[in-house]
Parts: sequence; structure tokens; C-alpha cells
Amino acid sequence: MSFPSWLSQLYRGLSRPIRRTTQPIWGSLYRSLVQSSQRRNPEFSSFAVRTNTCGELRSSHLGQEVTLCGWIQYRRQNTFLVLRDFHGLVQVVIPQDESAASVRKILCEAPVESVVQVSGTVISRPAGQENPKMPTGEIEIKVKTAELLNACKKLPFEIKDFMKKTEGLRLQYRYLDLRSFQMQYNLRLRSQMVMKMREYLCNLHGFVDIETPTLFKRTPGGAKEFLVPSREPGKFYSLPQSPQQFKQLLMVGGLDRYFQVARCYRDEGSRPDRQPEFTQIDIEMSFVDQTGIQSLIEGLLQYSWPNDKDPVVVPFPTVTFTEALATYGTDKPDTRFGMKIIDISDVFRNTEIGFLQDALSKPHGTVKAICIPEGAKYLKRKDIESIRKFAADHFNQCSLLGKLRLECADLLETRGMVLRDPTLFSFLWVVDFPLFLPKEENPRELESAHHPFTAPHPSDIHLLYTEPKKARSQHYDLVLNGNEIGGGSIRIHNAELQRYILATLLKEDVKMLSHLLQALDYGAPPHGGIALGLDRLICLVTGSPSIRDVIAFPKSFRGHDLMSNAPDSIPSEELKPYHIRVSWPTDSKAERAH
Amino acid sequence: MSFPSWLSQLYRGLSRPIRRTTQPIWGSLYRSLVQSSQRRNPEFSSFAVRTNTCGELRSSHLGQEVTLCGWIQYRRQNTFLVLRDFHGLVQVVIPQDESAASVRKILCEAPVESVVQVSGTVISRPAGQENPKMPTGEIEIKVKTAELLNACKKLPFEIKDFMKKTEGLRLQYRYLDLRSFQMQYNLRLRSQMVMKMREYLCNLHGFVDIETPTLFKRTPGGAKEFLVPSREPGKFYSLPQSPQQFKQLLMVGGLDRYFQVARCYRDEGSRPDRQPEFTQIDIEMSFVDQTGIQSLIEGLLQYSWPNDKDPVVVPFPTVTFTEALATYGTDKPDTRFGMKIIDISDVFRNTEIGFLQDALSKPHGTVKAICIPEGAKYLKRKDIESIRKFAADHFNQCSLLGKLRLECADLLETRGMVLRDPTLFSFLWVVDFPLFLPKEENPRELESAHHPFTAPHPSDIHLLYTEPKKARSQHYDLVLNGNEIGGGSIRIHNAELQRYILATLLKEDVKMLSHLLQALDYGAPPHGGIALGLDRLICLVTGSPSIRDVIAFPKSFRGHDLMSNAPDSIPSEELKPYHIRVSWPTDSKAERAH
Repeated sequence: MSFPSWLSQLYRGLSRPIRRTTQPIWGSLYRSLVQSSQRRNPEFSSFAVRTNTCGELRSSHLGQEVTLCGWIQYRRQNTFLVLRDFHGLVQVVIPQDESAASVRKILCEAPVESVVQVSGTVISRPAGQENPKMPTGEIEIKVKTAELLNACKKLPFEIKDFMKKTEGLRLQYRYLDLRSFQMQYNLRLRSQMVMKMREYLCNLHGFVDIETPTLFKRTPGGAKEFLVPSREPGKFYSLPQSPQQFKQLLMVGGLDRYFQVARCYRDEGSRPDRQPEFTQIDIEMSFVDQTGIQSLIEGLLQYSWPNDKDPVVVPFPTVTFTEALATYGTDKPDTRFGMKIIDISDVFRNTEIGFLQDALSKPHGTVKAICIPEGAKYLKRKDIESIRKFAADHFNQCSLLGKLRLECADLLETRGMVLRDPTLFSFLWVVDFPLFLPKEENPRELESAHHPFTAPHPSDIHLLYTEPKKARSQHYDLVLNGNEIGGGSIRIHNAELQRYILATLLKEDVKMLSHLLQALDYGAPPHGGIALGLDRLICLVTGSPSIRDVIAFPKSFRGHDLMSNAPDSIPSEELKPYHIRVSWPTDSKAERAH
Repeated sequence: MSFPSWLSQLYRGLSRPIRRTTQPIWGSLYRSLVQSSQRRNPEFSSFAVRTNTCGELRSSHLGQEVTLCGWIQYRRQNTFLVLRDFHGLVQVVIPQDESAASVRKILCEAPVESVVQVSGTVISRPAGQENPKMPTGEIEIKVKTAELLNACKKLPFEIKDFMKKTEGLRLQYRYLDLRSFQMQYNLRLRSQMVMKMREYLCNLHGFVDIETPTLFKRTPGGAKEFLVPSREPGKFYSLPQSPQQFKQLLMVGGLDRYFQVARCYRDEGSRPDRQPEFTQIDIEMSFVDQTGIQSLIEGLLQYSWPNDKDPVVVPFPTVTFTEALATYGTDKPDTRFGMKIIDISDVFRNTEIGFLQDALSKPHGTVKAICIPEGAKYLKRKDIESIRKFAADHFNQCSLLGKLRLECADLLETRGMVLRDPTLFSFLWVVDFPLFLPKEENPRELESAHHPFTAPHPSDIHLLYTEPKKARSQHYDLVLNGNEIGGGSIRIHNAELQRYILATLLKEDVKMLSHLLQALDYGAPPHGGIALGLDRLICLVTGSPSIRDVIAFPKSFRGHDLMSNAPDSIPSEELKPYHIRVSWPTDSKAERAH
């Protein structure tokens, strides 16, 4: 029996470690699940009407009477039927003798993807008919009884050609898409990895898993917060972007070590590869400094890392924000490859090349270069031309060199060079961010580079009162392969300092945060924390093209649930208890809204 | 040193197993945490600036140099200071020699509840000064250095008298309330118990932890669903009351075994001891029957039960809905005590007592009694009078006898009889519920007794087409000490049957559920599940008076966050992107709304 082509297609479509497509994939899913848990196998058939899963049967089961439940994956000439469950595939022999006519009828007539239950004996396949590519390839099931549990109607698309379908169709029929090997793999790996994170935090390091509210009060500058009307006229809850305030208040409450796999909400309108609700591994602890949090997270990732990947090496390297910008042109550098930005000002200092002299004569004027290894060999004239055009298009953007570096990497890879090994996971801490940035709309005013609870760098506290723009923070970002997968900070625990920063430097309305300021006054311990973006992390670990591939029921990039058609219209009577009305836009406005 | 009185007060206030109030409580919290995890102690001081927790130091630590961080619990005559963290209390000797003047100043001047860090040596207490009531009572800390990490301002209330404060004050200053032994115990027990549930489901039985969306489409009859306006005019998300549809769709997607510690939302306005957001242990599995789910849950509770309670005995007894009503007058009977309802019609059949003959002559007329053990001894004349009044007040309510049974139990307990042992946990399955109930507003029409996806009892399927009112369902409730703590069912997996029930029997708009109906058509496996109300369960396990005591940041019964003042007003500009306006009620309406 050949391995079902749709599975291998799904598998080939990935940038995960490339294996032979003939390898039994359902078997490897199972193995990696079991290996990664490093404990006895879960009892996958406990409490169920089956005795075994389809994928687990081996020669060691020969002679056993088994009951299996699964989907009809494939049928060959009314002789064999291949049954599938989440665990794998097994071959069922369709009985040919007259006495088994009713069983034969069920197994021959049920459409593909119907659900059947069969009972029978595990037998050896006849000599020469073993399938070494299939984990269950040495055995087959001699059926005694069969039951059609549910017939499958004509599917909206042939599952074999599934990957050719648009993502819209996949999302509309998500419950079918979830049957694919890839989605099973992604969701099960996610579950396993989060479970191991919990073991590490809760069982090994005494963290307390605490749920915090999602119906909360809007936070200052919370323009991206979804609103939830209450039954009190004009009063709204907000769905918070993170449990930031609560985790700090838990530290004031002496909980000492908090974590939560926290649902967060952010209304950014239509943004590709963002979701209106997302998940973060949210962590806070008392009596800790920056290196403490960093070591905690390094240990966390090492402990929870899937065993079918190369182990995580700790400690992770650290660069400062300034170094990152200078060397990679970005604060989230992909350190899987070199091609660093080099300052070559000195080389040109004494030349007479006009535009370079021009640049060097300006304050902070520099000439910088990226050395492309074997560039002359790999890049063609039109590539050079496209690089030149790219540079011109992004002229005067300070992140130009960082973008150019990635653009060159893309070009080299399309020309066959392997720059960014998909099996490599390159973690990096970025530290010493500025505490404040000039406000975009009014550069004389300051805004928090991250959030107003971030503590200043211990060496820079005096700058808050003289040159706050120059103060660095105790914020740290965790970067993986050029993606920010986490960020956190040591927080301000001194109420006076917090008030000064909020009121004097940021000119925020402190009334909205009076509860937090008050809490700091009542014996708040020094504390700090971090949040890891779980969706992005799992996306990178599984090598998925989008975070939608690691979420069971994601929204489209416009924020729609294509399966159920959410958001949806609501009868106006149902708005009444919430004292709201729809402001229907005039036609012209409506057009702008779309 | 006497044990701090506020802790013992808190402890006394509970109906948990009564222990001597002199027992060291912070020690017992620690022991029960460690015992219940049945593994090596978590490293509570890893990654932190302290070397040890306050509560862990014993004679075995003598001579060790330690660094501790904690809150000043108590100071005695500028000689001793008792430092507290989540783990317990330790005595610190304030140095009296001149060379330690700065340390002495810090330790003598910092107000109570300030946070300090001390470094020093673990030494024996002088002979005769040991405190056997304190886990750390054999040792004390000889301080070398001390640092005031954060001073505490005057507290809004003395923590010693805390339990006398109103719940409103506790909620307003929740971060202080969380420092109490009771809240630490409740939240840590909750975290531990959920962790063990996860181990049972994920590691032992192969369940997959899958997050489902909370921004969803409104469900038929979803009048209690919070709305979330989207940026599309007139389009709203709904916050679902449970992941019911998603968990079923996951089964269609072949995920086989799903669980989630799921945040759910229900807008019931002001209801005592309900929360607008709450948590359920949400479970679904394929190829299972009712007894399978029941065994799963019995094992789950047995496995996760705290070790400081008596072990859970399985299997749990089962009664049918009909039996429960007949015997206890309720579908959630408290089976910790007897006083069952007995049918004594036959005794009175041949008497001539007028009102009894009257009752017996009616269709289904019965005479029922509750035998109150030693009632004559315990109940006084005025008790009998109050029972009679209670009966009169609730006359003609079918649940009268059930209420009367509980009323009598209350009375007996106020008179000193121990009927409901607080250390006893009496689980009960209630099964064979009716599938439908007559609609309240129109008793000729039917509504689902639970929800429309509940499968009918296998013996009663024929009744759906003849006498649907008589059909029983495959719904089951789990009851603990008279509280419903869970409910679930085997679901309908046949699309035709689901359509018939929705459209023909319930007259629902099937369009809103077209995605689910479609999913059932594409090879949905037989499946079933359950949801346990986590807040209520932990409330019962910890013997707390309210679910608010097992939630870190609960809302008041009016749905307010008293700490941050949510829900709150929103500037009208911030409503614009959501195309909504507030419908301010006229004055008279506003009054009604309050």
C-alpha cells in the first residue's frame, strides 16, 4: 500500500527537517509525541469503545482480538480498506465469504471519510505483502463485525488535493482541515509543549497558575482594546491586551511566582498574520533581576523543547539594542546567518568620492557595508539591480540596512544558497532598550518605548531627572530567528518613581491607574516578568507558514470566522439591554470603512 | 512568639477540617502543597535574589548563610522581627551592637508590611526560647546586612482585624487581601489541583489541550452572551457561554480527546455568587459512551484530589432524575445525610383524614414524609412552627419537599446536630434527564432541557417521533454535596437527527448552526463530553463561603471590579470605530436600570 499522497504532500510543504516522503508520517507523529513526553505512553484507548488505536498495532499484537474506530481513508478493489485515526493507519481485510455478506456490504459501500467500527483479529500479512513504509505494515485486521457509525456525504473538496485549496476554503471547513496530518501535528505539539512548560514552572519552580480577568477597565492609551458593553448605560468593560496590571498586583499580593497561559485581545483591524485574540505565556516573579528572568526562560525553553528537534543550547547570546541596530539594522536580528553590517567609514575617510564625502561630513555620518559571501558567484546582474532598487525605495529609512540584509538573504536563497537552516533555532536576547521614545505626533513629548511600568536601568536613574531621553530601561526582548517571541522587564516597584514617570514625564492621567499606584505604596516587592507569544513560538517550532496553522479555529486576516460567519448582525432588541445603538455610516463613510 | 492572630482568625473562619488554632498554619500550607504534588519540592528560590524562603528554615540549616526577602509581619521591642513570605514566618534577631547601627535602624524603623531583604546566619534559638508552634521555631536569623526594599504606607485597615472588614473593602484592596493565608491557600490549591487534572488528562490519557476562540458568533437563544462590537458597522462578536460548538467540531476534526481549562462568559446581570466570567474544565472525547465519561471524571477527581482531604471513593453512586426528585425533591441532592422523602400514601389510603384523602384522590396524588432523626429531641416548638410556615410559603411548588429537607437540616444544625460533615465530599451522578421541557412562555412548545446537541437515550429514540416530551436524554450531572459541579452528555452525531430536533421539535433557526450541521454530515464520530465548574468545585474543596474566595480578582455581585472600577465610561470618540452610540435612557428608565 502506498502512503496516502495527501499526507506526504502536506508534509513536503513544510520547512521542517526534510525527511524522505516515503517515511511513515503518522508513525513519526506518534513517536515524537511519546518521546517528547519522556514517560509511559498515555492510554489513548481508556474509557473508549475501542480496544486499540489504528496506528499502534504491530506484530506484537498478533492474535489479539481488537475493536477499532476510525475514518475510511482508502479502499482497494473491495478487498482492503485502510482505516485512519489520529494515531495512524491500519489495513483491514474485507471478508469475501458469503457468511460475512453484511460486514462486506458495510465496508464496501461506506463512502471515504465515513466513520466505522470494526472488531476482529490482528493477523500477519501474507509473506511478501508486508509494507515496511507503514508502521502497521506487518499486520492487518481480519474482521468479524463491522458497524457504520456515520456515513460521510460528498466532501466540499477532495481531501487528496487539499493543499491546493485556498486558505479561505480550509478555514470555512476547518473541521475537515483539522483531520490533516499537519494540523494534528501542530495542535498536538502545541499541547505537549505547553504541558511541559507548565511542569517546569509549576512542578519544578513553584510558580502558581492564576487566572486573571478579561473583562476589565480600559487602560491609558488602550485604543486597541475591544469594548464589551455592560448593562449599565455608558459603561463598558475592555478586553485587555495582556494581564500586565494583574500580574503586578499579584506580586503586591505576595503570590511570589505567577504564570498563566493567558488569552489576550488586541483590535488592530485587518493585519496579516495577527489575530484579534492570541495567547501568551505570561510570567511574573518577585525578588528577581533581569538575569534571573533570562535564566528562567532559557530553562523553560530547554525543558519544553520538542525532542524531535535539536536541543536548545543555553545561555542564549545577548546583544544590546544599540549593538543590534548597528550590526543587524534591526532590534530583532535573525542570527542564523552572518552578513553583519560593517562600518567602513574609515576606509573612505580620505577618498574623494563625492557622495561618500557628503555622507561622512554630516553629524554621525557613516558609510556602512554588508559583505555578501560568494555574492559574485550567486547573484546575477538583475539581482544587483533589484538590490539597488530596494535601497532606493527604502532610502532614508533608518532600518534600510537591516531590510537590505534580509532582502539579500532572500535573493541568495532563491539562487540556491542555504543561509537560514530551517532546523536551526537561533535565540537571542536584546537588552538595554531606551526607556522612552519621542512621540510620533509631537517629538518633544515622550512615550514609553514599551509600557510605563518598565523600570529604568539602574545606572540611568539619574538621567530621568536630567535627560530622560537617554535613559535605558530594564526591558528585554527574546528573539528567535529574526522574530520577537517574547518581551518583558523588571518593573517599577516604587510608587513615587512610578508617579513621576506617569505624571511628569509621560503626562498620563494617573487617575486611571490609581489602584496600581496605591498598591505600590503598600509594600510592593521588587518584581519582574516576561510574556512569550505562544502562537508565534509554536509557528516557528513547527515551521508553519502562518500562526493560523497553529491555532485550531483562527480568524481570517480581516478578523472573520469563516466557518461560522462571525462577527454577525445582532437584532436591535438584543442591543437594548446594553444601552447601545448602531451608528450606521452614511454611504461614503461606509465605503471608507471597507 | 505567639502565632499571628489574623492568620488563625482567618483559619478559624473556615469549615475545613477543624484543627487546633495553635497549629502552625503556614507550615501546613507548605506541607500540603508538597505532599499533594507527590514529587520533589519545587525550587521556590531558583532565579531569585534570596537563597531560601522564610518558611523553610529548620535546625538542619544551622550555620548556613542565607538571604531572605519578605514582609515585616511583626516586631517585638526592637529586638525581634518576624519576616513573612508565602511560605511562612521566620524570626530575625535585630542586632544591638553599635557596629550594626544602620542595620538596626532599617529593621526598627520600617513600618509593618514593608518589604525587606536580610542576609545573615541561621542560628539556634537560646535554650527555652524555642517555639514548637512555629515550623521555624527552633531557629532564628542573626542578621549581617539588611535592605529596605519598599516601605509600606499606612494601610487602609489593620490586617489583624481583616476578617471583620466588609467584602467590599477586601475586593477594593484585593492585592492586600491576597496576602492572607486563606487566599494564598485557595489560589495555590486551585493551581495544584488544575495541574494534576492536566497531568491526568494529558499525560495519562492522551487528551489534547486545545484553545478555542472567545470572539465568536452568537448562538441561538444566546440572550446571556456579552457582545463585542467589531469595526464593521452592525457586526458583533459574542463571548460564548462555553466552547460547546468548538469541542464538537474538534471531534469532527479527528482530535479524538480534547480538554481545555476554558474561560466562559455569561451575562446574567446581578446574581449572587455568579461571575460574568468563569472557568470550566471542558472535556470531549470520541467513541465513548456515558459510562466512559463517568469513569474518566471519577478518575480525574480521584487523581487530582488534594492530599490533605480524605481520598475520593469511586465509582460515584448514580440516581436517575426521577429517583432524585422522588427521594430528595431536587435534581442536585445533598447525599451527605439521609432524611429521604418517603411515600406514605398507603398508610393513609384507608384513613378518613379529610385533606389527605383529598390529596390522594387526585391523579398522581401522594402523601409524602420526611423522617427527622431525633427530631423530637432537637427541634423545639418554634422550629416546628417555622417548618410549617416554610411549607405554607412554598405550597404548590414541586420542589417544596426538597427545600423542606434542607430547611430541616439547617434547623437541626443550628440546634447542634452535625448532619453535613464538612470533611465529607459526597459525589453523585444524576442521569436520565428528560430531553425536552415545555417552554415556560408556551407550554405546548418544547425547549431543550440542557442544549439541543444532547443525544436522546438509546431506548427512547422512537419517542422523538411520537411523544418527544417523554424522551429521556443521555445527559448526566455531577453533584457534590448538593451542588451541581458538572454536566455533560453524549451528543448527537447524526446530522438528520440533529436537524429534526432543531427544526421540527425545537423550531430553531437552523441557519445559525448550518456549519455544525454540515460538519455532522462529513463523518462526525460518535462523541460525548462534560464540563466541570472549576470555581464552584474549588470553592467546595476549600470550604469557602463564596466562589469569590477562590478567584484572584473576582467581580462583585453587580459585576463590578471594585479595585479598578470596571466597567467604566468610554469617551465617545473611542466608540466611533465600532459604529456604536450609547442610548442614554430617559431619567425614569435610568432609575429602572439601577
